[in-house]
Amino acid sequence: MTAYDDLMAHARQTMALAQIAGRLGWDQETMMPRGAAAQRGEEMAAIEAVLHARRSDPRVAEWLETAEAPDEAGRAQLREIRRAYDRATRVPADLAARIAQVTSEAQGKWAQARADEDFAAFRPVLEEVVALKREEGAALAQGGDIYDAMLQDYEPGATGAGIAEIFDAMRPRLAALRAAVLDRPGPDGLRGPFDERAQMKLARRLARVFGYDFSRGRLDKAVHPFSSGSGSDVRITTRTAEDDPFNCIYSTIHETGHAAYEQAVDPAYALTPIGHGASMGVHESQSRIYENQLGRSRAFTGWLFARMREAFGDFGVADADSFYAIVNRVHNGYIRTEADEVQYNLHIMLRFDLERALMRGELQVADLETAWNDRFAADFGYAVDKPSNGCLQDVHWSVGLFGYFPTYALGNVYAGCLHQALRQAVPDLDTQLAAGDLSGATGWLRENLQRHGALRPPLEMIEAASGVAPTEAPLLDYLEEKFGALYGLKAA
Amino acid sequence: MTAYDDLMAHARQTMALAQIAGRLGWDQETMMPRGAAAQRGEEMAAIEAVLHARRSDPRVAEWLETAEAPDEAGRAQLREIRRAYDRATRVPADLAARIAQVTSEAQGKWAQARADEDFAAFRPVLEEVVALKREEGAALAQGGDIYDAMLQDYEPGATGAGIAEIFDAMRPRLAALRAAVLDRPGPDGLRGPFDERAQMKLARRLARVFGYDFSRGRLDKAVHPFSSGSGSDVRITTRTAEDDPFNCIYSTIHETGHAAYEQAVDPAYALTPIGHGASMGVHESQSRIYENQLGRSRAFTGWLFARMREAFGDFGVADADSFYAIVNRVHNGYIRTEADEVQYNLHIMLRFDLERALMRGELQVADLETAWNDRFAADFGYAVDKPSNGCLQDVHWSVGLFGYFPTYALGNVYAGCLHQALRQAVPDLDTQLAAGDLSGATGWLRENLQRHGALRPPLEMIEAASGVAPTEAPLLDYLEEKFGALYGLKAA
Repeated sequence: MTAYDDLMAHARQTMALAQIAGRLGWDQETMMPRGAAAQRGEEMAAIEAVLHARRSDPRVAEWLETAEAPDEAGRAQLREIRRAYDRATRVPADLAARIAQVTSEAQGKWAQARADEDFAAFRPVLEEVVALKREEGAALAQGGDIYDAMLQDYEPGATGAGIAEIFDAMRPRLAALRAAVLDRPGPDGLRGPFDERAQMKLARRLARVFGYDFSRGRLDKAVHPFSSGSGSDVRITTRTAEDDPFNCIYSTIHETGHAAYEQAVDPAYALTPIGHGASMGVHESQSRIYENQLGRSRAFTGWLFARMREAFGDFGVADADSFYAIVNRVHNGYIRTEADEVQYNLHIMLRFDLERALMRGELQVADLETAWNDRFAADFGYAVDKPSNGCLQDVHWSVGLFGYFPTYALGNVYAGCLHQALRQAVPDLDTQLAAGDLSGATGWLRENLQRHGALRPPLEMIEAASGVAPTEAPLLDYLEEKFGALYGLKAA
Repeated sequence: MTAYDDLMAHARQTMALAQIAGRLGWDQETMMPRGAAAQRGEEMAAIEAVLHARRSDPRVAEWLETAEAPDEAGRAQLREIRRAYDRATRVPADLAARIAQVTSEAQGKWAQARADEDFAAFRPVLEEVVALKREEGAALAQGGDIYDAMLQDYEPGATGAGIAEIFDAMRPRLAALRAAVLDRPGPDGLRGPFDERAQMKLARRLARVFGYDFSRGRLDKAVHPFSSGSGSDVRITTRTAEDDPFNCIYSTIHETGHAAYEQAVDPAYALTPIGHGASMGVHESQSRIYENQLGRSRAFTGWLFARMREAFGDFGVADADSFYAIVNRVHNGYIRTEADEVQYNLHIMLRFDLERALMRGELQVADLETAWNDRFAADFGYAVDKPSNGCLQDVHWSVGLFGYFPTYALGNVYAGCLHQALRQAVPDLDTQLAAGDLSGATGWLRENLQRHGALRPPLEMIEAASGVAPTEAPLLDYLEEKFGALYGLKAA
């Protein structure tokens, strides 16, 4: 056994245990009886302790010193192992324990404060979370930028400045598009009811159509849809609401994007440090291109309209063009997760700027609510009416997720680049989509991106697949063209 | 922190990880996609390796040397920790690994051989399993009896000689009862179909009626019903067959007995080495008394008959007396898991004698099929027609479970003792059962046995609850009285 072999054997067992922890998380959101929560917390803590001990095992450092990778994949494995080791050893154990404890408490307080519409009640514990996360960030940054250090957990290689540059380029064009679209009349939403069993049946069909392999996964309901696991056990969840079938349909397609990515990774990488998606941003690029550029296209919604008629009968929409317009309806709203393609990224940029300022010490928690409301009014043109529609709407900060939000918009940017390349590579894509045939699109993504797992850093991965260094331009061009046509705007 | 505190903190984390491994087992039988089997095998091996390392951690031996238990429960904790440590350290790691590998292979070969009705195809790998298990038994026994050493994994404190003594006393009376009953005419079985959704609905009600707490558990379908987990997350499974509702009903009540036991253990013991049932035999005493002495009683089946009529309408049984007779129908059959109360223990005794002889080297695998068939003919009076109805019917030996079978019959013996005491303690039990009220019975079991978990060794536990040193007499008296009345036999 060489040092590399020892290291890989150790990493493989760690990855297997991490899969188990992920499966517990899935169980918690889908199957676990409610009375089991406290015991489950202790079980999760036990396996997290095992994982931390393995990742920070001093033998890993010794092996890393002499390990020689046999090939490109091996070098990538070493890179990922080193990153996990640094992450695990740089943060003192007592700080990690305090963060776990305080964020667990903060999540409960956030939920209560949101229910009570009372930011002041959440503020003290959020101040604690921010202070602890800044301490953690400083330990990770080793003298560098705290926020940049945090980004590495979600988007290796990204910097706050780099993201700010992209977002700053996007914001004026998105704001202008939004204003122009909202100036025009748009369609109303759907009128229910839509049978929830029929929605689930359609969801299963859509997952299959988008390439999800049910022999290596399953679809269940959950309050907040998610995808979980890698290798040959990747599970997805969705939800249904009787008055809104789009929630079920597009949550399913979105999670199928995440899951199909994991299912497509080269089986040779299974249970290894590169045997999963390259980053949160690249992951989101897959869920978004499945959901939006493919799932909300005119061609595909034509096919979907016919399936909706089969499932629900006449639901009051006259034709596929009207249906397409409703699917892509742009309307005002406070909530990020309900935002349309035009406005979604504006919600993200707001959060990115605020959380980066919080982490860099340029914004205090005491000023967060005002800062949020001011920025929202500036970008959206109307005032936040209550905290649950404003800075209390997302769980992320309460559980210490700083650096996560921008990956949603980066995913959209990457999806824009990939979509441009995909259109060139598959000229008859719309003909395929109109027939409900996603195999050309998902096959191209699988071949050019998904199968590589985390072989290369995110930006390299997107550039290799799309043929260009990622920029915001393809996404913005796509949005302006799509919504310009939908809302009858003059060409710029 | 004292050595005792250190030891308990370590054990608590180990128990939490063991719970996770158990949850994975549940997932595998209920939820796991079929394509995930190989990866799951690696995940299970990873967590088993973690568990083994923790149980055999040299610090455990050091702590045990100086640990002082604060009370009776503490002494029981130390006893259980020491037993797990000895178990983990006496068996060489490479032997344990070989057993895991060979039994995994043997299970597949057993399933194939059973399908092919070909014991000869299974024989070589079973010889390997037997040789390895004897080696393991010798390591555990340290000069003592190999089979006695193996029994400790399932029934701490039991000996082969002690069990043989009980079984030898039971066999003639059971054989005589069986012969007398089968000499009399009996009822036919039920005629279906019975709607499977209605069966599941009834199963949920029965679990609840027998005291199962759904807020700390759930009921799903599985090919082979089982109960899994302890503390506040104890899950059960059942199965349905359209032509046989009793399979679903009595599997559910049986597994509810196991699960209610786990749910009743003192919460102060949760996630500790005594926070679960005392042994396989004591566990089986709960599942059996729920299923048989309570669930198949004349009083309870009267209530159940009315529920069956509600669920399935008129299903061709005229009255509650006829229903009671059908529930308790005694008829010839080859299969242990389908056997009635009169014949079940005869199936066990056959296996006990054969497996004990295999482990002690008094029987060779080459002679196993003949030995089985001879013994079956002697006890049941007709010949085994094919291996799947004979020595290939059970999975146990293929996966290395030697010493497990007798706990099924010990459970029946213990249930007999507990039932006798319960009848004395709750004089109006039949009135309660006739009203579908199990609270008197399950409350008595909870109070006198279940809540103590593994506080005391099995025999002490049964004796404390039933007020007498366990013997086979109460079970045999109960069977002779019940089936004597049902089949119109003269009093002995």
